[in-house]
Amino acid sequence: MLDLTINRDSKPPLYRQIAEQIKTQISNGRLPANSRLPTVRGLARSLGVTRLTVQNAYAELQADGWVEATVGRGTFVSTAVQQMSLQPTIGQYLTPDSAINDMLAINQVIGVRSMAMAHADPSLFPMDAFWQQMAQLRLEANQLFSYGPIQGDAALRVAIAALLHEDGMATSPDDILVTSGAMQSISLAAQAICQPGDMVLVEQPTFLGVLNVLKAQELRPLHLPIQSHGPNLDQMEQLIKTHRPRCFYTVANYHNPTGITTSAAKRQAILQLAQKYNLLIIEDDIYGKLSFAGPPPSSYKQQDDDDRVLYLSSFSKVLMPGLRVGYLIMPPAWRDQLLTLRRATDLCGTGLLQRALAHFLQDGGLKKHLRRVLPIYQERRDALLNGLQRWMPTAVRWSEPQGGFSCWLSLPRCAPPGVLYHQALQNGFAFTPGEAYMLEESNQEYLRLCFGNLSTEGIEAGVKLLGMLIQKQLATGQTHGDWLPYV
Amino acid sequence: MLDLTINRDSKPPLYRQIAEQIKTQISNGRLPANSRLPTVRGLARSLGVTRLTVQNAYAELQADGWVEATVGRGTFVSTAVQQMSLQPTIGQYLTPDSAINDMLAINQVIGVRSMAMAHADPSLFPMDAFWQQMAQLRLEANQLFSYGPIQGDAALRVAIAALLHEDGMATSPDDILVTSGAMQSISLAAQAICQPGDMVLVEQPTFLGVLNVLKAQELRPLHLPIQSHGPNLDQMEQLIKTHRPRCFYTVANYHNPTGITTSAAKRQAILQLAQKYNLLIIEDDIYGKLSFAGPPPSSYKQQDDDDRVLYLSSFSKVLMPGLRVGYLIMPPAWRDQLLTLRRATDLCGTGLLQRALAHFLQDGGLKKHLRRVLPIYQERRDALLNGLQRWMPTAVRWSEPQGGFSCWLSLPRCAPPGVLYHQALQNGFAFTPGEAYMLEESNQEYLRLCFGNLSTEGIEAGVKLLGMLIQKQLATGQTHGDWLPYV
Repeated sequence: MLDLTINRDSKPPLYRQIAEQIKTQISNGRLPANSRLPTVRGLARSLGVTRLTVQNAYAELQADGWVEATVGRGTFVSTAVQQMSLQPTIGQYLTPDSAINDMLAINQVIGVRSMAMAHADPSLFPMDAFWQQMAQLRLEANQLFSYGPIQGDAALRVAIAALLHEDGMATSPDDILVTSGAMQSISLAAQAICQPGDMVLVEQPTFLGVLNVLKAQELRPLHLPIQSHGPNLDQMEQLIKTHRPRCFYTVANYHNPTGITTSAAKRQAILQLAQKYNLLIIEDDIYGKLSFAGPPPSSYKQQDDDDRVLYLSSFSKVLMPGLRVGYLIMPPAWRDQLLTLRRATDLCGTGLLQRALAHFLQDGGLKKHLRRVLPIYQERRDALLNGLQRWMPTAVRWSEPQGGFSCWLSLPRCAPPGVLYHQALQNGFAFTPGEAYMLEESNQEYLRLCFGNLSTEGIEAGVKLLGMLIQKQLATGQTHGDWLPYV
Repeated sequence: MLDLTINRDSKPPLYRQIAEQIKTQISNGRLPANSRLPTVRGLARSLGVTRLTVQNAYAELQADGWVEATVGRGTFVSTAVQQMSLQPTIGQYLTPDSAINDMLAINQVIGVRSMAMAHADPSLFPMDAFWQQMAQLRLEANQLFSYGPIQGDAALRVAIAALLHEDGMATSPDDILVTSGAMQSISLAAQAICQPGDMVLVEQPTFLGVLNVLKAQELRPLHLPIQSHGPNLDQMEQLIKTHRPRCFYTVANYHNPTGITTSAAKRQAILQLAQKYNLLIIEDDIYGKLSFAGPPPSSYKQQDDDDRVLYLSSFSKVLMPGLRVGYLIMPPAWRDQLLTLRRATDLCGTGLLQRALAHFLQDGGLKKHLRRVLPIYQERRDALLNGLQRWMPTAVRWSEPQGGFSCWLSLPRCAPPGVLYHQALQNGFAFTPGEAYMLEESNQEYLRLCFGNLSTEGIEAGVKLLGMLIQKQLATGQTHGDWLPYV
């Protein structure tokens, strides 16, 4: 019989307590694939709960693919559940490239609770409303499946301009380039304004994707440490003076991977530095609308008097990444070059999804969606911070994100890089190892925990496990020299 | 009253004869926007046809957006009909970049018959079958709108590998990279194998998009004239010896823009040259399945013993460009680099459309579609060749494409570049001006006529107009020196 405990006084409903404990046992291998679960009647009796409660727990496990039920035979742990030992490629390297691959691969593995990817929860996607918009386009479909305009669907550009107006950015639909996601915006922006060999100032740590873009374009990253209110300004000026970078790539709101928001004062100072040294700014605002505590400070673009800011965002985090729709405000000086590069990259996006998105936005679908999901994401953030408070040894530090999906942990290094990551994976829990973000080994160990795509109960279970692993490591491992908390 | 003539002995049904003549008068400005058409009853009486015939003609014009009907007021030429004089940006320049822009812009203009774009006919898209496949994915939609695999949907890669097997290319789903159309395949392939400054051998003329890719990546095109059975081999070897290009980009089947197919013998000789001089080949087979007279000669990839061919194709021409789905067979040596570049470009494609396409292919939808549309495209090709035979002065030469969408004309130059193009546009007819494809002004004038996206009647009307414009030009203009027909 399963070894489960239930707590009638705690907040999660009984069926979720049961489901989450079974997930934990599947994750850590105590219930391997094909294990038979107790009968509904048997488990209900032994736990002293109703059969409906157990049925609900099993139904949730089944919906997520963790178990399979066969009429007359019973309920079994899914054959799709893969122990991480069967995934030898995951965690093999700790480079940016491998880390992104791992995140995507782990996303497909059933039997792992993942906080590895800064990702909205697919079960919260506004699919009914969006699907309805698509369905209504049947009569226009032949046109929408033809070649579309390079700059993107006109109706969508109108809707995006309206969104930007609300955020204080006066821009015309004709200034907007619709892209296949923020990655493409970054790639096009960098290619438009830089020459191979140029240096690009980035926060350290920064979005792994941008490091891939720079490498592919033979641009050189120049790393600017980020602190609790944004980049260190003295270091920034020093780096600019010494290396003369072409531009500064920044995620000022709910930064990935740290969750930090650059303060209004720092933004002003940074804009002044940019003007002083003629630095362009690529402002990636992909998380800006995922705010738990009122809107973030004014964007660089809002204060951009001399067209030095290339502002970009996307619907991947606020709606659904599978739309592959991002956008970029084209400053007049770079407009032709950006359109030329887009034409030489993939010509245009998918008309059907762009038009459906346009109608979804026009109908207020985004606002409605955010009203629904932001409280849920905030609750998950709270579950994470509470869990960290409860389970982490005192040596561990973490950021307190006011939006977005990312939280950044630092602790004294007392095991070689990757050990903690692999231990967690073996126990069915995934995070993003900090090594992927860092240039060189250091005395600190960092890790990113993303709270967007896991239930509060899953977050609690994961943080508890992680806390115990870290505790053990700190107790038995050797710390190497001094260390400084990063955040 | 309208000046229309009908011919009861000719093939097109009477209603189409009426509709096409009205289109001609709208195109050339004799019926400007907001003109009132005769009543159904009045026109039927004056032409001696049934009212149903006129109703059908008006219904077709309305469906295409050329006219609008208001109950009680009558039928009017649509306000959406735009005289080309209102589109001052079209035809302003004759560069590759502008030509592509023009094609896309003209595509949106109601009131122009366009043979400018090598494009399937949207009214022939297999939309019912495809839409049904999409509709059946509702339950998987949340997963399909998440981040997808970088390499593309697994089911789609299996279906593509099966397609390639039928064409004699033994490839595994794991060798396939799904891209956002052939443009992205070309862009990634070139970036993977070339360094800035490298020379790339291309046919002259060649696909305009590839010239944009080369320019964006600072690669240098090396132009190899194409003849009636493919590139000139002696010139090819000479160019290779002198300039040592890194690779050869080729459209061997139903070449764009000339419609020429490289013969089997030339393919073998070219592969030998490639081996001799260690030249890589980027084989763009986007038109290969659009064959009117049996399959084309074996692809380079089929005969590629030493992995020097990067084979790519797409569903844009055989199905619908709005899918934005192309594919590339990754040779082992370039696999990692191609995946890395894709990751740094736009991460992944749209899961919904990729999965729906996978199911469409699995159900035999592509074969069924081609059985339906190839006879129609062949009929249009025939209408074009017959029209050219009938309306062109003897000095004009043209290719005889056995597939694809492109036909290439050459004639003695007797007017400055762009004059013929603008004259045709003013009369509501669009082609692609050859200047966009050529490096320098020459004594010949070239133009591309694409027959995929216009009815046989529209093609006849367009070619007749073009023939008269050319006749007039040859009669009044000065030819400059000698000229050689290009094909």
